[in-house]
Amino acid sequence: MGFKLLSTDLVTQARRGQLQTRHGGIETPVFMPVGTQATVKATTPAELCEVGAQIILGNTYHLFLRPGLEVIREMGGLHRFMNWHAPILTDSGGFQVFSLSKLRRITEEGVHFNNHLDGSPCFLSPEIAMQIQTTLGSDIAMVFDECPPYPCEHEYASASLDRTLRWAERCRSWLEKQSADHRPLTFGIVQGAVYHDLRKRSACSLVDLDFDGYAVGGVSVGEPEEEMMRAIENSERFLPIQKPRYAMGLGTPPQIIEMVARGIDMFDCVLPTRLARNGTAFTARGTMNLKNNPYRADPRPIEEGCECSTCQQFTRAYIRHLIKAEEILGLRLVTIHNLYFYLRLMILIRTALEQGTFAQFREQFVANYIKHEPKSSEDES
Amino acid sequence: MGFKLLSTDLVTQARRGQLQTRHGGIETPVFMPVGTQATVKATTPAELCEVGAQIILGNTYHLFLRPGLEVIREMGGLHRFMNWHAPILTDSGGFQVFSLSKLRRITEEGVHFNNHLDGSPCFLSPEIAMQIQTTLGSDIAMVFDECPPYPCEHEYASASLDRTLRWAERCRSWLEKQSADHRPLTFGIVQGAVYHDLRKRSACSLVDLDFDGYAVGGVSVGEPEEEMMRAIENSERFLPIQKPRYAMGLGTPPQIIEMVARGIDMFDCVLPTRLARNGTAFTARGTMNLKNNPYRADPRPIEEGCECSTCQQFTRAYIRHLIKAEEILGLRLVTIHNLYFYLRLMILIRTALEQGTFAQFREQFVANYIKHEPKSSEDES
Repeated sequence: MGFKLLSTDLVTQARRGQLQTRHGGIETPVFMPVGTQATVKATTPAELCEVGAQIILGNTYHLFLRPGLEVIREMGGLHRFMNWHAPILTDSGGFQVFSLSKLRRITEEGVHFNNHLDGSPCFLSPEIAMQIQTTLGSDIAMVFDECPPYPCEHEYASASLDRTLRWAERCRSWLEKQSADHRPLTFGIVQGAVYHDLRKRSACSLVDLDFDGYAVGGVSVGEPEEEMMRAIENSERFLPIQKPRYAMGLGTPPQIIEMVARGIDMFDCVLPTRLARNGTAFTARGTMNLKNNPYRADPRPIEEGCECSTCQQFTRAYIRHLIKAEEILGLRLVTIHNLYFYLRLMILIRTALEQGTFAQFREQFVANYIKHEPKSSEDES
Repeated sequence: MGFKLLSTDLVTQARRGQLQTRHGGIETPVFMPVGTQATVKATTPAELCEVGAQIILGNTYHLFLRPGLEVIREMGGLHRFMNWHAPILTDSGGFQVFSLSKLRRITEEGVHFNNHLDGSPCFLSPEIAMQIQTTLGSDIAMVFDECPPYPCEHEYASASLDRTLRWAERCRSWLEKQSADHRPLTFGIVQGAVYHDLRKRSACSLVDLDFDGYAVGGVSVGEPEEEMMRAIENSERFLPIQKPRYAMGLGTPPQIIEMVARGIDMFDCVLPTRLARNGTAFTARGTMNLKNNPYRADPRPIEEGCECSTCQQFTRAYIRHLIKAEEILGLRLVTIHNLYFYLRLMILIRTALEQGTFAQFREQFVANYIKHEPKSSEDES
């Protein structure tokens, strides 16, 4: 159990590693498809294996509300419940409490809120969040944190961060009392908004608590991309080399490559699945709105040369028709392609790292992607 | 090309046959999943093969409107467009013109209507309907007919029927002018509402025109089940033994068995796919509303002993959760189970016919199904 750093890039800070969990190993850098409600939207576990997913993410907040812990416990944990037998990382619920629910009160003890499903009052604390994740059978659990909004005053960010650090300590203590065979790997979450001093304080304090890995939280909450990259840099530099680093909720393909170059090992993002449901596909030349009229009789696959099952079988014309007609098969096919694209990107990144060609790969991929990425004004549907 | 009657049941009028089309043979009695918009809702062609589909149905009206004939022609026909290489039966568009669109005027020439998508004026005639189906590359085309509503006065039904017969003749003439290798098998449609004399006149006149098969139309349009069965009986008795008979748009599992017993060979119905999207599964003991509370932690598959990929992998508890959470995977899994259930039912029917045990099978299946079928009041979600 734990992380093994295999190599570090000579030009950038990119790393090639392996993370061992109870449900098997993960090659890093890794992308984790998001399975919010015990399913990566529109896909089966078998399809996730086919596109090359090594690990998926589950959302503590959503699963806690529905189907509820009792059901998942009775069904033998989240892996058995959803018939996914590779690793699962669970978030702590913190982010969703602050972004989805109607917040009532943050206290030292935890957070009181009304959930977004039926509005009923709920309470989450560091101990409860850890207990839920342990009950789910998570392979990698996240500490319970407050994710402040953007923009956020230094004063608030600082006070919030201190509480989040005390919460991290309580997560640590709770875990130490559990028997080793039920204990997930646990990651601390670096907060501190856009403030360098706070990011540093957060990272250093978490490192003192000695977690199995460290996430950068509170990014991609509405800030400009440069702020996001700076927050990553200002967190990463204080993290130990021999532990995995995870950028939560990110990002576009170029952003992922840029963050790999900044030493990040793990990613999760809803973009490939969410954009698929809107008919948008990822390609090496940027995104592609399949609703657009030029594709109406286009006999090519979404991306020529792509080996995903969608591109092996179906044309742009057919997928466009399905999306326009609001047929479920349309979003299924684009979801598969997009997940394959993201997971294949990670294979290319890992291969480039192994071959010592990551810097060139990064330059070429990002330039090609950005150059061809259509402006939204080009999208006509 | 054409129908081969293999055997007839000694007790009932059930038949075991084979229908040869340009895209391969079909064992009858057969159930045809409905692929209205060039997709059987929520499924891939590979999944349709896996559940045992031999032939699917496409809707002329929908495909004519979207993506339009030009696109499908350019993409090499409906089979290539949707990547389904087994037989396809297309309806004539008649039923949809009368049920979905805003009807403007029925003339001797054809039907003027405003389509349901953008309200723009359209026109369908017997010749146009045949041309569309030929362009789609249909293996089995249906003649263009008027489907009168229920209830319907004898006078209207009679006049409508006469026009429908003249339209059938025009379909026949149009087809005779086409080269043999583009000509689909073509079925006449018996109309005549609930009136015996009209059903007889319709059936006999169509038989005189010598089609490749005969459908019973204008059933399941709101009439009681006994009326429906009588309409089937009063059509079937005038149809030639050596041609296939098709009951359009039907039915529940017991209805299908009852109609097989009345000499029907082919069926199509949206029930397995439509009910799946609402979380209702078919089992040998009737339908099952998976939203119901008792299934919340039920570790069993939808139907014990079922060999569909859903039942092999997922529990009632998980599927219930997915349906309640409105996750696409939920309706996908139930769709697969329901289609498998219908197609497996047809295998059981064919096997019983081959073994001379159809009468017993019918009695047992229908009794078991009806006895356990829950009343809708039992459904709590």
